[in-house]
Amino acid sequence: MPEIHAARRGRLQAVLAAGDADAALITSLVNVRYLTGLASSNAALLVPAAGDAVLATDSRYALAADRDCPDLECVTSREVESALVGLASGRGLRRLAFEAHEMTVERCNALASAGELEPRPLGRVVEDLRMVKDDAEIALLARACEITGQAFDQVAPQITAGMTERELAVLIDRAMIDAGAEKPAFDTIVASGPNGAIPHHTPSGRPLAAGDMITIDCGARCEGYHADMTRTVVLGPPASWQRDVYALVAAAQRAGIAAAGPGAAVADVDAAARGVIDQAGHGEHFSHGLGHGVGLEIHEAPMLGRGRPGRLADRVPITVEPGIYLPGRGGVRIEDTLVVRSGAPAAARVMLTTTTTVTSRELLVL
Amino acid sequence: MPEIHAARRGRLQAVLAAGDADAALITSLVNVRYLTGLASSNAALLVPAAGDAVLATDSRYALAADRDCPDLECVTSREVESALVGLASGRGLRRLAFEAHEMTVERCNALASAGELEPRPLGRVVEDLRMVKDDAEIALLARACEITGQAFDQVAPQITAGMTERELAVLIDRAMIDAGAEKPAFDTIVASGPNGAIPHHTPSGRPLAAGDMITIDCGARCEGYHADMTRTVVLGPPASWQRDVYALVAAAQRAGIAAAGPGAAVADVDAAARGVIDQAGHGEHFSHGLGHGVGLEIHEAPMLGRGRPGRLADRVPITVEPGIYLPGRGGVRIEDTLVVRSGAPAAARVMLTTTTTVTSRELLVL
Repeated sequence: MPEIHAARRGRLQAVLAAGDADAALITSLVNVRYLTGLASSNAALLVPAAGDAVLATDSRYALAADRDCPDLECVTSREVESALVGLASGRGLRRLAFEAHEMTVERCNALASAGELEPRPLGRVVEDLRMVKDDAEIALLARACEITGQAFDQVAPQITAGMTERELAVLIDRAMIDAGAEKPAFDTIVASGPNGAIPHHTPSGRPLAAGDMITIDCGARCEGYHADMTRTVVLGPPASWQRDVYALVAAAQRAGIAAAGPGAAVADVDAAARGVIDQAGHGEHFSHGLGHGVGLEIHEAPMLGRGRPGRLADRVPITVEPGIYLPGRGGVRIEDTLVVRSGAPAAARVMLTTTTTVTSRELLVL
Repeated sequence: MPEIHAARRGRLQAVLAAGDADAALITSLVNVRYLTGLASSNAALLVPAAGDAVLATDSRYALAADRDCPDLECVTSREVESALVGLASGRGLRRLAFEAHEMTVERCNALASAGELEPRPLGRVVEDLRMVKDDAEIALLARACEITGQAFDQVAPQITAGMTERELAVLIDRAMIDAGAEKPAFDTIVASGPNGAIPHHTPSGRPLAAGDMITIDCGARCEGYHADMTRTVVLGPPASWQRDVYALVAAAQRAGIAAAGPGAAVADVDAAARGVIDQAGHGEHFSHGLGHGVGLEIHEAPMLGRGRPGRLADRVPITVEPGIYLPGRGGVRIEDTLVVRSGAPAAARVMLTTTTTVTSRELLVL
């Protein structure tokens, strides 16, 4: 779909035209993919404020660039940045905006000495453009979330005492691949019993045991787009504290989702969920932000947390994932991916993650 | 093994003491892991030229830091770099060497404005230290290579016409995990028939067909250490050109391995293998370097290629992976991981990758 990528480049050019740069040198590989469609481990893109963009990648990706970016001039070089800087210099594009959050000091020094350039930071302009997704992106996110839910539904009935955290993580990864994921969106987390108190626990050889709560954080990737879902289940009849903590996190998630309408300040969305947990006296046990944007990266703008700037808008996919972590005892996290949509209140957010085995509203007892 | 990591930090301190920096701020996460044992997605390490180092990581990794680095002072902060820069400033460590090849311009600007620092580039000092491996590292690489070979041996007999490239890649990944890999060391490559002409082909839905050569590039990861192995097999009786190209690549690999002794210039090792391919008139079809160092990263120093600087030494693990790529027809690559060792010529290099199903010396016909 070259026209989609051309339109995205057009939006970047509109930003450039309003600023003081002659061109932008895009070196974030995710941003290059967003603006061109090319997935490459070595690529860069020169986008002049007016006129046609030029892509650079090395010979390994030359055929893919021909196929995916037929409308783009493409330079084949291993040194993609210096190739484009030389080209910019030759075309009189001196005031070059670059991605200071991606470019290393070493590479920047090399560029600065390469030609008569006036480098200046671009900022996170492309990341900001990426926040609002088009129909094709939302469809890919929905597909990734669907696969994630299918995999969870398939594996949940197989969870038994004695299986290790790592074995369960492998089962989920395999179910996602078999359901059509290109790969897991991130390293699957399985945290059982006391390990549930560690938000980013690495699945271990610990065998699941009766009475454990088990937090499973997983997601599929489809054509570069990431799903993110967390479910907490319990092995055998839950203790009353487990039911209580689960109900509290579920209530916090409901409050967060209800607040996540178009126009809402991200800090307010975080506060809506956090307030529920604070009021129950567990504020210190919810140690991370409420959620994050998701798309070509698993964590991208906007970040939902205390003191974070910005507001939600139509077509912004986010996760809402409150958690309570009790050292030595365990933890609960519940996470869904949804898309903020404008329109009637009932349609103001669309859930992308779905599981039939368990809704995020009730604790699944295995 | 805290003493191993303390010894590594001692070697870095010896470099610092010979230079003009009061301390080094290590921000490459791989380098932090190498110097401390802590695997974290958010960590940094302050190493003064003299005295004790200070680790910083966020609360998610605080327990792991206590467990893995009991001998290190550890600061818990989400902003690991500014925490350590503030600490360095407070201790009068102004001349701060930083990793300019890893640090972004944006983060460097933030640090420079944080205190009265005199930042200066450290260079790839830690990467250079990492080239020479200790016994524990070589043992982990050997284990990763052993798992890789086991997985290949198990899957090779299952390769049949009609199976897709992607299905074969998934089989290999699963066999590596089942054999004990923590994860695949990189995205497994399966390139069949004409796709074999693309060195870094992404496994596709193409069904394997009789007469295909199939290039399989895979590796297991064990406790952070990466194996790297490539085998090219043929489905059914090979055509004479397939036998010829395979024999040529195998001969080139033998020549490269023979040249890879301690003290050899890496450019000469590349040339030894490349000369064999050049003389057969296929020089233009061997488009990449001969190999690379391997360890906590899949590609690390030393890089073996034309014009690359440096020499091999005792205890340096490398890959040797010549290839010939014929557009429209297919390709052959053969890759092994070995360790350069000093001593008698026969022991001057130790092969780590082994496969019983096929040696890299002969084309496996399936």
